[in-house]
Amino acid sequence: MTTASGAAGPDAAGLAIGVLGGTGDQGRGLARRLSMAGHRVIIGSRKAERAVAAAAELGGGLLSGAENRDAAAAADVVIAAVPWEGHRDLLVALAEQLAGKVVIDCVNPVGFDSRGAYALDVPEGSAAEQAAAVLPDSTVVGAFHHVPAGLLLDPAVDTVDMDVLVLGDIRAATDLVIALASEIPGMRGIYGGRLRNCGQIEALTANLVSINRRYSAHAGIRITDV
Amino acid sequence: MTTASGAAGPDAAGLAIGVLGGTGDQGRGLARRLSMAGHRVIIGSRKAERAVAAAAELGGGLLSGAENRDAAAAADVVIAAVPWEGHRDLLVALAEQLAGKVVIDCVNPVGFDSRGAYALDVPEGSAAEQAAAVLPDSTVVGAFHHVPAGLLLDPAVDTVDMDVLVLGDIRAATDLVIALASEIPGMRGIYGGRLRNCGQIEALTANLVSINRRYSAHAGIRITDV
Repeated sequence: MTTASGAAGPDAAGLAIGVLGGTGDQGRGLARRLSMAGHRVIIGSRKAERAVAAAAELGGGLLSGAENRDAAAAADVVIAAVPWEGHRDLLVALAEQLAGKVVIDCVNPVGFDSRGAYALDVPEGSAAEQAAAVLPDSTVVGAFHHVPAGLLLDPAVDTVDMDVLVLGDIRAATDLVIALASEIPGMRGIYGGRLRNCGQIEALTANLVSINRRYSAHAGIRITDV
Repeated sequence: MTTASGAAGPDAAGLAIGVLGGTGDQGRGLARRLSMAGHRVIIGSRKAERAVAAAAELGGGLLSGAENRDAAAAADVVIAAVPWEGHRDLLVALAEQLAGKVVIDCVNPVGFDSRGAYALDVPEGSAAEQAAAVLPDSTVVGAFHHVPAGLLLDPAVDTVDMDVLVLGDIRAATDLVIALASEIPGMRGIYGGRLRNCGQIEALTANLVSINRRYSAHAGIRITDV
């Protein structure tokens, strides 16, 4: 991890980013934007060939694809962008590869029924707290929950007008992820509280889905007065 | 309730607003801004004299004070701005006065300890859902959870730069509260989803407290792309 060289906080430049479950919309969108910001990005998937294909489709360059385990092992910082259903099992299986690393959890436990989206009950309080529980040797940070994948993947969209709330209990790690989020043009990383307050940020995705449906929008949030 | 006269949605003008627990910061702030927007506002409190004193201190005019029960009875729309601890009992006691009315719940079940603010566990899912459960003859809407009381009460602050998420299951009621919120200069009401998604909006207050502490701010939220 590149360390801070001044008051501007940690420098995320040069970090290799792994994206577990990186063939989904959220993962591909983040992989694309972070590679555009100059990072080597390893898209991970259950099957290496799917990850390789996704990386090629996104334009290659700094992007590559690998099986999730290899993506985790090769990266400095790892984003977990897997479906909620497989979240716990995958992280348990990769605990060794993720040890000593910052793991960014952007998973939203949200369900859908005839009345729209709703927050699922999570025994640990949040996906991020579940990750922290099964990855005792990693530093888990919650972030990138609300990034509209469609915008991140759209070549016509140059800047993404939204803040990314970054939650965690270790200041060096949240500062690093704030710096990472702020590398994407238009996006700004903001400290959003401790990990125990991550559940409502994940659940807020259900509200944003409702807003998108009502207003035909790609809604994000901004924090005012910061 | 004044009904909609066009595509602009319902007209909230002319509605008398009751504010239960209106002597607290959040209640006084909302009472002040809504009276400035031209509404007759009845501040409610357990003791009438405290409510009368709060109304006088805020400048009188369209503001008056009364015991909570009388404030509820006299108003067209009622805001519940009471402490979470007394929330359920007060609403149960006023169910008759609140029947047939829109009740706006802005209560945040948030606790504080040495590590800061955190969301309390609410058996009904949210304060607003608790209100709906004990007020079967009222229409409960969740809104105004994150309004920074200090800004609402500050005579030097002309506009309040934030969106108010409005949650509920009855379109006419959420549209009315959206119109009401949008009357406060700078503020904008936005539909935020059904009542079952109100818990995370209430809990988000804990994150905003964390943000305020980290950045020395009066943080609010804006929804982008709407």
